[in-house]
Amino acid sequence: MDKKTVGSSDTFKGKTTPKNFTKNPIIGTKFTIAISSAKGGVGKSTFATNFALALKSTGSKVGILDADIYGPSLPKMMSINEKPKSKDGKSLEPISQYGIQCISIGLLVDKETPMIWRGPMVTSAIKTFAQKVLWNNLDFIVVDMPPGTGDTQLTFAQEIKVDGAIIVSTPQEIALLDVRRGIRMFDKLKVPILGLVDNMSFFEVDGKNYNIFGEGGVEKVANDYKKNFLGKIPIDIDLRVAADNGKPLFEKNPDHKISKIFQEIAKKIKGSFL
Amino acid sequence: MDKKTVGSSDTFKGKTTPKNFTKNPIIGTKFTIAISSAKGGVGKSTFATNFALALKSTGSKVGILDADIYGPSLPKMMSINEKPKSKDGKSLEPISQYGIQCISIGLLVDKETPMIWRGPMVTSAIKTFAQKVLWNNLDFIVVDMPPGTGDTQLTFAQEIKVDGAIIVSTPQEIALLDVRRGIRMFDKLKVPILGLVDNMSFFEVDGKNYNIFGEGGVEKVANDYKKNFLGKIPIDIDLRVAADNGKPLFEKNPDHKISKIFQEIAKKIKGSFL
Repeated sequence: MDKKTVGSSDTFKGKTTPKNFTKNPIIGTKFTIAISSAKGGVGKSTFATNFALALKSTGSKVGILDADIYGPSLPKMMSINEKPKSKDGKSLEPISQYGIQCISIGLLVDKETPMIWRGPMVTSAIKTFAQKVLWNNLDFIVVDMPPGTGDTQLTFAQEIKVDGAIIVSTPQEIALLDVRRGIRMFDKLKVPILGLVDNMSFFEVDGKNYNIFGEGGVEKVANDYKKNFLGKIPIDIDLRVAADNGKPLFEKNPDHKISKIFQEIAKKIKGSFL
Repeated sequence: MDKKTVGSSDTFKGKTTPKNFTKNPIIGTKFTIAISSAKGGVGKSTFATNFALALKSTGSKVGILDADIYGPSLPKMMSINEKPKSKDGKSLEPISQYGIQCISIGLLVDKETPMIWRGPMVTSAIKTFAQKVLWNNLDFIVVDMPPGTGDTQLTFAQEIKVDGAIIVSTPQEIALLDVRRGIRMFDKLKVPILGLVDNMSFFEVDGKNYNIFGEGGVEKVANDYKKNFLGKIPIDIDLRVAADNGKPLFEKNPDHKISKIFQEIAKKIKGSFL
C-alpha cells in the first residue's frame, strides 16, 4: 500500500534526498506553489486563500488544493457547500468560487467528520487530488499544506513537481524552531523556497503596536538561511472575521490595507515565475 | 511494518470503533491525560507545560510525554539541553526539569533537524515513548498531542490506556470546526473527554478586552456536545515570553493571574481522578 516509504531523518538514517522518484506536474496547471508552515495555527489557510485571490487579481488563473486532510479549512473559508462532481467515476471536477478553482477533502465528507486515517490513506488522498482533479488551464495552483514534515510533505516533494514553497509563521521563538525545521526539510527535498512571511506580526490598538507573539523573528530566520523575506502581515480582526464568514478579506475588500499587503506579495511571487 | 493500519472514516469505511486492541497503561504511571487540539498553534504545548506544573503543585508526581514528533516544543519550553540516558541500550530515562519528568523526540535529535517521516515511523517512536521510558512512579502523565487525527492519535487510542483528554482551542469559527472533529474522534475511539479550554480568549489593553479570535465559541461547542467547559485563558504576553524563555509562567510566577487559572483547571481535573 505504501511501497515508497522513505521515512528517515539525518540522525537515524542519513540522507533524505529523494532519489528515483518521478515528479509529475499537477495536470492542468503551470506552476505549483506550496504554502507551508511546519507549525499549525499560524494563519496559513487565511494566507493561502487571500494570496490566491491576490494572484488572480494580477490576471492569472488560480486554483487552491487544500492538502490538509485532518483539518480542511477551505470549504468554510470560501463558503463552498456543494460536492465536486465526477462524470466518469474516476476524475473530480474542482468547485469554482470567487473565480478560484478549489478542491478539499472537506468537500467530500460531512464537515464535522474527523478523518481518522493513518499515513498511507492520507498519501492516497493527496495523490487523487494531484492526479485526478480536472484543473482547467491554471497558471498557478496554490497548495495549502498541513503542519508537520510527514506523509503529505513527502508525497508532494517526491512525486509532484512543486515549483516553490512559501513559509508562513508567527514570530514567536517556539514557532521559529518549526520554521527552521521546515526550511531544512524543503532544502533537503530540493523544493525551492520562494520566501518567508511574518504573519500575526503585531496587533494595533489606537496607533500603538503590541508584539503579542514577539518581534522580527521570521525576518531574522530568513536572513540566517539566506531566504527572501516577503513581508509582515499584522493581526487584524477584519481578516479573521472575513475568514470565519466564508469570504476572504481580499475578495470582500481589495482596497483594505491588509489586502494591499497580499497584493504586494502576489506580485513578487508572480514576478519570479512569469 | 504497519500491520495494524486501521485508516478509515465514517463516510468511506463505516465504523471506526477500535476492536481487538490491547490497551496498556504507560508503565510507571497511574493516569494518562492527553492534551489535544485537532488544530495546531492554539497554545497546546504552553497549556500542557503550565498544566503539568499546576498539577505538580497540588502534590502529584507528574511527567510530560511530548507526542508531537514533527514539531516538538518541550525541550525549548522547559530549557532541557541534555540527552536522555539509556543504561541497557533498550530503555530511556526521562529528563527531570522543574520537578517534571520529560521526554520528547526533540531531546534525541538536533533541535533544527526536521523529522521527515512517514506514519509508521511516527507510530514506532510513539510506542517507544509509551513503553520504553523509565517513568518513575508518576500519578499523572500529560501527553502533548500533535495536531490532526492521524497516526499518533490512533496509536494512543488503540494501544495505550488514555484516561482522559483535554481539548484546547482558540475561539475562532475555523478552529471550532477542528474541535468538533476532535470531539467526534475521541468519542469514536472511546477516550473520555475531561473538558474543553478556551485559549487565547481575548487580549486586554488598558482594561478593555479585544476578542481577536472571536468570543465564546469553545464554550458553545462544549455545550453542544455536552462536555465540560474548563475555562478561558486570555492572550498574555507574559505567558508567551515565559514559554519562549524556557521557564513556564507557572514555574516562574505561580501567583500570576494566569497561573491561578491553570491551578483551578488542575484542581478540577485532579478531582475527577483522585
